[in-house]
Amino acid sequence: MPSVAVLGASGFTGALAAHLLWRHPDFELGAVTARTDVGRRLDDLYPRHRVPLELEELDVERHGAVDAAVVAYPHGASAPVVAALRERGARVVDLSADFRLRDRATYEDWYGPHGAPELFGTAVYGLPELYRDAVRGAALVAAPGCYPTATLLALAPLARAGLIADVVVDAKSGVSGAGRAATEATHFVTVDENVNAYGVAHHRHSPEIDQELAALGAPVAATFTPHLVPLDQGELVSCYVTPSRAVEDDELRALYAAAYASEPFIELAQRPPGVRDVRDTNVCRISVHADARTGKAIAFAAIDNLWKGAAAQAVQCLNLMFGLDERAGLA
Amino acid sequence: MPSVAVLGASGFTGALAAHLLWRHPDFELGAVTARTDVGRRLDDLYPRHRVPLELEELDVERHGAVDAAVVAYPHGASAPVVAALRERGARVVDLSADFRLRDRATYEDWYGPHGAPELFGTAVYGLPELYRDAVRGAALVAAPGCYPTATLLALAPLARAGLIADVVVDAKSGVSGAGRAATEATHFVTVDENVNAYGVAHHRHSPEIDQELAALGAPVAATFTPHLVPLDQGELVSCYVTPSRAVEDDELRALYAAAYASEPFIELAQRPPGVRDVRDTNVCRISVHADARTGKAIAFAAIDNLWKGAAAQAVQCLNLMFGLDERAGLA
Amino acid sequence: MPSVAVLGASGFTGALAAHLLWRHPDFELGAVTARTDVGRRLDDLYPRHRVPLELEELDVERHGAVDAAVVAYPHGASAPVVAALRERGARVVDLSADFRLRDRATYEDWYGPHGAPELFGTAVYGLPELYRDAVRGAALVAAPGCYPTATLLALAPLARAGLIADVVVDAKSGVSGAGRAATEATHFVTVDENVNAYGVAHHRHSPEIDQELAALGAPVAATFTPHLVPLDQGELVSCYVTPSRAVEDDELRALYAAAYASEPFIELAQRPPGVRDVRDTNVCRISVHADARTGKAIAFAAIDNLWKGAAAQAVQCLNLMFGLDERAGLA
Amino acid sequence: MPSVAVLGASGFTGALAAHLLWRHPDFELGAVTARTDVGRRLDDLYPRHRVPLELEELDVERHGAVDAAVVAYPHGASAPVVAALRERGARVVDLSADFRLRDRATYEDWYGPHGAPELFGTAVYGLPELYRDAVRGAALVAAPGCYPTATLLALAPLARAGLIADVVVDAKSGVSGAGRAATEATHFVTVDENVNAYGVAHHRHSPEIDQELAALGAPVAATFTPHLVPLDQGELVSCYVTPSRAVEDDELRALYAAAYASEPFIELAQRPPGVRDVRDTNVCRISVHADARTGKAIAFAAIDNLWKGAAAQAVQCLNLMFGLDERAGLA
Repeated sequence: MPSVAVLGASGFTGALAAHLLWRHPDFELGAVTARTDVGRRLDDLYPRHRVPLELEELDVERHGAVDAAVVAYPHGASAPVVAALRERGARVVDLSADFRLRDRATYEDWYGPHGAPELFGTAVYGLPELYRDAVRGAALVAAPGCYPTATLLALAPLARAGLIADVVVDAKSGVSGAGRAATEATHFVTVDENVNAYGVAHHRHSPEIDQELAALGAPVAATFTPHLVPLDQGELVSCYVTPSRAVEDDELRALYAAAYASEPFIELAQRPPGVRDVRDTNVCRISVHADARTGKAIAFAAIDNLWKGAAAQAVQCLNLMFGLDERAGLA
Repeated sequence: MPSVAVLGASGFTGALAAHLLWRHPDFELGAVTARTDVGRRLDDLYPRHRVPLELEELDVERHGAVDAAVVAYPHGASAPVVAALRERGARVVDLSADFRLRDRATYEDWYGPHGAPELFGTAVYGLPELYRDAVRGAALVAAPGCYPTATLLALAPLARAGLIADVVVDAKSGVSGAGRAATEATHFVTVDENVNAYGVAHHRHSPEIDQELAALGAPVAATFTPHLVPLDQGELVSCYVTPSRAVEDDELRALYAAAYASEPFIELAQRPPGVRDVRDTNVCRISVHADARTGKAIAFAAIDNLWKGAAAQAVQCLNLMFGLDERAGLA
Repeated sequence: MPSVAVLGASGFTGALAAHLLWRHPDFELGAVTARTDVGRRLDDLYPRHRVPLELEELDVERHGAVDAAVVAYPHGASAPVVAALRERGARVVDLSADFRLRDRATYEDWYGPHGAPELFGTAVYGLPELYRDAVRGAALVAAPGCYPTATLLALAPLARAGLIADVVVDAKSGVSGAGRAATEATHFVTVDENVNAYGVAHHRHSPEIDQELAALGAPVAATFTPHLVPLDQGELVSCYVTPSRAVEDDELRALYAAAYASEPFIELAQRPPGVRDVRDTNVCRISVHADARTGKAIAFAAIDNLWKGAAAQAVQCLNLMFGLDERAGLA
Repeated sequence: MPSVAVLGASGFTGALAAHLLWRHPDFELGAVTARTDVGRRLDDLYPRHRVPLELEELDVERHGAVDAAVVAYPHGASAPVVAALRERGARVVDLSADFRLRDRATYEDWYGPHGAPELFGTAVYGLPELYRDAVRGAALVAAPGCYPTATLLALAPLARAGLIADVVVDAKSGVSGAGRAATEATHFVTVDENVNAYGVAHHRHSPEIDQELAALGAPVAATFTPHLVPLDQGELVSCYVTPSRAVEDDELRALYAAAYASEPFIELAQRPPGVRDVRDTNVCRISVHADARTGKAIAFAAIDNLWKGAAAQAVQCLNLMFGLDERAGLA
């Protein structure tokens, strides 16, 4: 049974990845490492995940001997570690932004110098619904951010049909998306009974969204605005498309039904999806609507930001990379 | 001291109007009536409002003898009662949709036959920031819906400047906006840890928004989509404007500063406003931003849907109608 | 594979039981019936449970032909249906209060006349940690209420050791415990940002708790007070025991460790458990403490009220009744 | 008009005290100082409080020239500053624990060496409902903790009547009680959908509660256990009293009615109070019940922990100290 290490397992996404691999029927969780909380057991830090392993300091020699690793580090910190793991032959799913972009200058504009330039541009973008075959053969997968995951799944059928002339994406995310760091922004009293936008006109997921929309056939600059809402796990994107020609409900629904007919983790709904519908699952639930008054096409996608938006999608990729049933350990 | 009755005081907005008038220095709360819970004391039903009056059944003869009334009935039920009050000479602020629209056919499309056609079209639209002088002299004021209130205040400076070529409005509202009726939609378990859109491509506030945007100089069909978020009081609208020409941050901020310089209840903020910032106040907090990447102008407005979105705005109108300081009882 | 029907699957506990049986490796979900929402698909009503079956009206002839049934009816409505199922040979786990009490007069004091008196007193109390062997052979199991489940598991070691002279139980429950009915009590705006006690000095779970404490060796009248807290699933009981003799931390922890050493669904914690720790699991997480200042022994137990407090515990019982691994379908 | 400074105004209670004094009709807010965020405006840090003053570094010479000060520092840090202010003649309401206890050894057991021993024991305990006359003449008031405030108001009538043989206090508090520091304990994801006890058998408010219960005539060691619940402002204490003789509902209610008849900030309720009922008010809402099954007397008290539990109670004390209407600025 292939052995997988999780690096950065003290954060929300790393810990969930460890949980999913621990209970996975076809992988062995080889080790959990972290840069904080070393020596603590994961089931002390996250009782609900019930992983009885101790967090270790990373030892590339030892931990690089696994068959694969999920790296849940912040951008910048991730690239050199990924490179070290790849040198030792481990396949890697990286959850950071370090390998998602394909244009080096764009990466450096947003994140600064890259920590493993020799690997830049070599990763497969880990959204199986768009890149399934490439993921199957990949040694290095860059798992998408949670916002691009939901946005691209909401828009892919329209983009491929050449229907997107312009698009506004208004995203709402639960607080786990902000990570485990205790800050004023994640303090309960800041978030509770509140809603607000952040990163207006300047969010790091924008270039990733634009890159992939272009790859799908929609070379637009999407207006992307995330909002923080008072809940834990869950993310909803509301996508307002100015279509390149008039569209109607029936055509849109048929388009999405055809695009996603055989997708194991996409659900199409008549009514707008709620984030509760997908909590603690790898499902992306989507609805699409024509607004006859204004001519817009409106698509909603709900995901669990920690699952389909990060850790579970990483496992979905690992399943493909190791020739397993794509749904293994995720049902 | 003028006496004011609140009709429909068992609901959230009516009860809050009663609270605000009860503690108001320049009005006397003459009576509270309701169609349910008659005989219960308001401070039993809503302890936090501390209004020690009993809910009475409406008696138009008796209750119409007040100087003014706030009517917090559903659309349809409101019009005939408003007409009866007006016949007896009481000035009225109506919180329903019955007198907001100026086109009779549009009203009937959305709400059916009108219950007091002789009064249709005679009300002043009770958004003081747009119609202050008219409200001062009005006998009948149609208080705006909570969504139009926030949306119009967010967009008025752009509309008046002729800058709105197209606009998408993504609104997020707390659950009190759905009213006191206990339904599957307002059950705690439905809403908690959830976000979803509703009324997609068909919300009753759309014609009201379009009517007033046109009056401001922006004859567009706004794409308006409300979402339910897990909090009690509060509403945020995120408005994505395709401008008719290129705009920059400085120009936008100067435009809003000029428009709202002397408004007692408008706050301009550099950062996107949160609904916590305005909870339990009559304040509308606004920020405006240019998105250099996409060319959009983005405006956010946060209000308390029960206060500035309904009951407190009604009191603001009453203050104007009776020649008081607009801020009386609302500071 | 044994076939199991869920009766009353439109409510929270019935729907969850259906979900757990649908994905269970060793049972087949034979049918889902309901008294409301007949004809709707369960995955329309509860998308997150993903059970693609239609709710049917109960047909005792047809639905009684299963190997077993989980009955999720309110008390009173349950007894006659249970009797009908038993007549047809189906084994039954009943989630109502109808078969939990062993004293008929007590039942009638709290609930009125019993609907199947011939079966009264014949059920096994479905708390496997206390009655495992009896559950194994049972044809009719009365699953405990959520409050007794947590309270009895928190107190059993102390009760068996004869250490309980008096006990105060302060319970906090999420709103799903109040069921799916939309009422003023379950309206989001009632519950949000609120905490309050209910059923003070008169909660229906009291006689059940006292009956089982007595059976364990603690013939006391427990002071039991439930509180509603603003969350969905989860329940915490805080039990303040006046011990019959002085106790210390070490002794208490040893007592609990011994009592629960081999229990698959009991977790002992050093720190007080949180309900998050057990959400969406069949686990009961417990801590016990001696208060040196006051002499009290304090035990906390956290469960998910819908899982260990109802539906998952029913599946745990079914596993035992059919000779399966007790953990099947619940890991 | 007397001038009041607020020291420590960057925290939740200090900021609220500043807000209350800013809008107070009979006090002038002289200055706001802080140990963090110096130079930021308070209405930038807390928009909802709308206090347009800049946080200054403490300058005892200058800030000590006010008529009074509210000190919202942590224990330990408070005492020397209070001493410096008193030397300059300013009257002080201290919100820390530094002057609440009357036994020096007890203070040092819980908090370490005292920072102003010459003042130890000279403060009046600032619970006006128990010490109104003493507060009127006081130069130094030690405002009670939020837990003792609610607990003592819930229990005072029973204590004075000699009815408390033993008592268990189970308290539930919103997260603002944990203060503004961003920690794992105050992270939204830790608290949301969670409830847990903390400080079990060892909470710093215990000696304060016991001291005051003894002063009221109930020399018991109260079993006190606080819990964190997922809401912002609000605190409920549930007090389970083993009475020294049998009691009944009528007697208890009469006892409380007599004790609190003329209290402006105590409300007696028939049903258990909810924390929503008192949010953003200085009100303590109380109910009392006899449990006929178990013989216990049960009292509940709900307060807003930041208002009656801290900042508003400080203003109530200031009103008394300066001969104003006790309700001034708090209605």
